[in-house]
Amino acid sequence: MLFNLNKAIEILERTPDTLTSMLDGLSDEWINNNEGEETWSPFDVIGHLIHGEKTDWLVRTELILSDKTDKKFPEFDRFAQFEESKGKTLSQMLNEFKILRKNNLEVLQSKNITVEDLNKTGVHPTFGDVTLKQHLSTWVAHDLGHIAQISRIMAKQYRDDVGPWRAFLPILDR
Amino acid sequence: MLFNLNKAIEILERTPDTLTSMLDGLSDEWINNNEGEETWSPFDVIGHLIHGEKTDWLVRTELILSDKTDKKFPEFDRFAQFEESKGKTLSQMLNEFKILRKNNLEVLQSKNITVEDLNKTGVHPTFGDVTLKQHLSTWVAHDLGHIAQISRIMAKQYRDDVGPWRAFLPILDR
Repeated sequence: MLFNLNKAIEILERTPDTLTSMLDGLSDEWINNNEGEETWSPFDVIGHLIHGEKTDWLVRTELILSDKTDKKFPEFDRFAQFEESKGKTLSQMLNEFKILRKNNLEVLQSKNITVEDLNKTGVHPTFGDVTLKQHLSTWVAHDLGHIAQISRIMAKQYRDDVGPWRAFLPILDR
Repeated sequence: MLFNLNKAIEILERTPDTLTSMLDGLSDEWINNNEGEETWSPFDVIGHLIHGEKTDWLVRTELILSDKTDKKFPEFDRFAQFEESKGKTLSQMLNEFKILRKNNLEVLQSKNITVEDLNKTGVHPTFGDVTLKQHLSTWVAHDLGHIAQISRIMAKQYRDDVGPWRAFLPILDR
């Protein structure tokens, strides 16, 4: 499957509804339990996705497409959500993510990105030069990775309860 | 997190809407591509989930709760969907899954399963004696495992496009 912006947007625009269907209204244990020490709960993951909408995906896209000479990406804070999510409910956060994503995709589509634009580059703090195509593909794969992570966190709550079936459910030991 | 039937149902009742949000209306490539030879596409996974609703989860629950002396589970056909899904669209299948799941959960709830019932057993073709609690926990973990699988299948379509980010996206190499 070759990268195509419209097909990438098909995934990006679905993520908020997918996460709302999965999580909104669940009991606190499903939302707040994690995979063990130093791991994230579904609640933490939603906070991380919100922070990405605010500081990463569109910001870096605009930097790559800009006329600036310094296209070094600002660092992304992988732990910002622990402060930013304080006092919020999961429903509020799912709604915030939905609005941010919708707005970001509207701006993205307004840029009429060409095949040539997809080869433009920015400078990643670890990787050095990266293309817009790589950045946008990563946005999609990152969404899907976190949907899988949330599924895994919740499945693991039943790791012992499934008894012998654990051998048939590889997700429980990832 | 201790197994609790109502909390298990919270997940089971959400799965059809989650999958519909993720998949309904996507381009054919997202739906039909897989992870390589002898692997499943998102379309195949939905067919598998339908077959489970028809022949596994509720059927085995009823067998465990029944007065029959022979409680050996019938074998589950992991490949039935390749015949059964022929000629159907993904939208039709998502809808079929939704109806089957809704009906199955209504029947499940009508049984007023007690804590004592959860310890009743049936005979699994590979594992031997398994409890109703193990069976119902597995239903939940199985749903979540397949949501994670579908996310992974789709993410892998961009495995090369993400360039150096592959190192930061473990889902692409699972």
